[in-house]
Amino acid sequence: MNSVQFERVALIGIGLIGGSIARDIAALGLAREIVVSSRSAETLKRAEELGLGTSYVASAAEAVKDADLVIVSVPVGASGAVAEQIAGYLKPGAIVTDVGSTKASVIAQMLPHMPAHVHFIPGHPIAGTEKSGPDAGFAGLFRGRWCILTPPPGTDAEALSRLKHFWESLGSRVDEMDAQHHDKVLAIVSHLPHIIAYNIVGTADDLETVTESEVIKYSASGFRDFTRLAASDPTMWRDVCLHNKDAILEMLARFSEDLAYLQRAIRWGEGDKLFDLFTRTRAIRRSIVEAGQDVDAPDFGRHALDKKD
Amino acid sequence: MNSVQFERVALIGIGLIGGSIARDIAALGLAREIVVSSRSAETLKRAEELGLGTSYVASAAEAVKDADLVIVSVPVGASGAVAEQIAGYLKPGAIVTDVGSTKASVIAQMLPHMPAHVHFIPGHPIAGTEKSGPDAGFAGLFRGRWCILTPPPGTDAEALSRLKHFWESLGSRVDEMDAQHHDKVLAIVSHLPHIIAYNIVGTADDLETVTESEVIKYSASGFRDFTRLAASDPTMWRDVCLHNKDAILEMLARFSEDLAYLQRAIRWGEGDKLFDLFTRTRAIRRSIVEAGQDVDAPDFGRHALDKKD
Repeated sequence: MNSVQFERVALIGIGLIGGSIARDIAALGLAREIVVSSRSAETLKRAEELGLGTSYVASAAEAVKDADLVIVSVPVGASGAVAEQIAGYLKPGAIVTDVGSTKASVIAQMLPHMPAHVHFIPGHPIAGTEKSGPDAGFAGLFRGRWCILTPPPGTDAEALSRLKHFWESLGSRVDEMDAQHHDKVLAIVSHLPHIIAYNIVGTADDLETVTESEVIKYSASGFRDFTRLAASDPTMWRDVCLHNKDAILEMLARFSEDLAYLQRAIRWGEGDKLFDLFTRTRAIRRSIVEAGQDVDAPDFGRHALDKKD
Repeated sequence: MNSVQFERVALIGIGLIGGSIARDIAALGLAREIVVSSRSAETLKRAEELGLGTSYVASAAEAVKDADLVIVSVPVGASGAVAEQIAGYLKPGAIVTDVGSTKASVIAQMLPHMPAHVHFIPGHPIAGTEKSGPDAGFAGLFRGRWCILTPPPGTDAEALSRLKHFWESLGSRVDEMDAQHHDKVLAIVSHLPHIIAYNIVGTADDLETVTESEVIKYSASGFRDFTRLAASDPTMWRDVCLHNKDAILEMLARFSEDLAYLQRAIRWGEGDKLFDLFTRTRAIRRSIVEAGQDVDAPDFGRHALDKKD
């Protein structure tokens, strides 16, 4: 069904996302060569053991030579360094993209290094799990998920169309928006949830009156849902916080304001205010399930997997 | 393997929890008669259609007559009214228990009504899903989950042992603690997570700069994890907030203090503080999985169910 879209793809960074892209490209036959690169010797070795590419090089500069498509999948704080390393080695006409969770910062870091003869089109597949590293990747991760592209003004239409087609081949639906809007949307749908999850798990861990063993034993009553996000890659999320600061601080302020309102309603026994909010939020869950963005099975369908006794 | 433990069990309230208990009792043959009662005519009718009991009565007083075990499964705010209704009809020697998410308030509401000739032993199975109503219940809900009993001082040892054995037959592991400690533990592992989830979903719903449709489309990036808890029964959770106020306000204060610290670290670009917290929280996830309180599959194993395209 699919055919070769690029002669040579270079994957700079081969963690959960890069590793999943590699598996999809191979499974679908979208490229003849997949050059894998990682700054970590251990990760590169593991990628080779897993057979994720057709060749493996430590140097990002080396990896991008003759590549028609370059996909940078590194923590967003490392984007600038990668751009600087590869800039002088990019093939004319190559498409350079990334998968970072923040876009304005990635553009600010990478764009100044990009030669005029390449097509730089930042992107962000809205997919992932709480696991990280090349072993965590799997074919099909992007299926049914959205991928947001944030092409800078003046982006070549044909290059954009090729990149869009590439993501669609992986099963994604593709949206375009400007980087600033992307960063605001992701601040609420992704960055704030992760920060809140990390925070509540930290709070629980620090309590003196409730033991850690109690928190763990009784976590099925709600807490465990937060621990998944709070198990995400620390380097990635440190970088996201540092590189989407303004939008995150704005969303945190809104969240805290709303929480103060809720806290006051609890203190003063205002049951109606609580009931109204708790009713309104149900509708959003329903819409997410209807949009195919979550499973409808109770408890995320854990019971299907949870039959060990 | 199991045998009849009670001649007649009365279930007051037949929602997710009561409905699951009914199914387990029937499947395991733990009682000869299961009398189902609900103050909602619609719910009672549905329970009968589902065949959850052996008889169905609107009146709680009627239901408890001759029952050896009475299980009250109603929103905690309704516990006092139920206790008052059933008090004069309880069989001498009957065990009266409940499944409410707060315990000090339930004891304060119910204990004054309980005649001296019954054994009142409050309980709380740490299990559930975001669904509610009799259709949402299922056999096996309590398997592998903890059930906390909070017997008042002087509780009859044999009655306690029978109730413990009952929950163990449903697959639960049983803990005992005092009601005040229960309420503090649950405030952090359950009540705070639900309140935070409701709150963040409300915040996202209220934004002017990001549309609801964007929140829904991109929710797989983290937000959707919160919407499950925020789809829980509004009446139940209003009552929990109103009936465990002190412990919840204490946990909310801790949470907000920690969030302010995190917010400040983001504002001032203190990457090390962020990295430290984000690393520490991973260990808790690992412990929860090791304790069998969550599945280890990435994304809660959604991908196993999520193969529609």
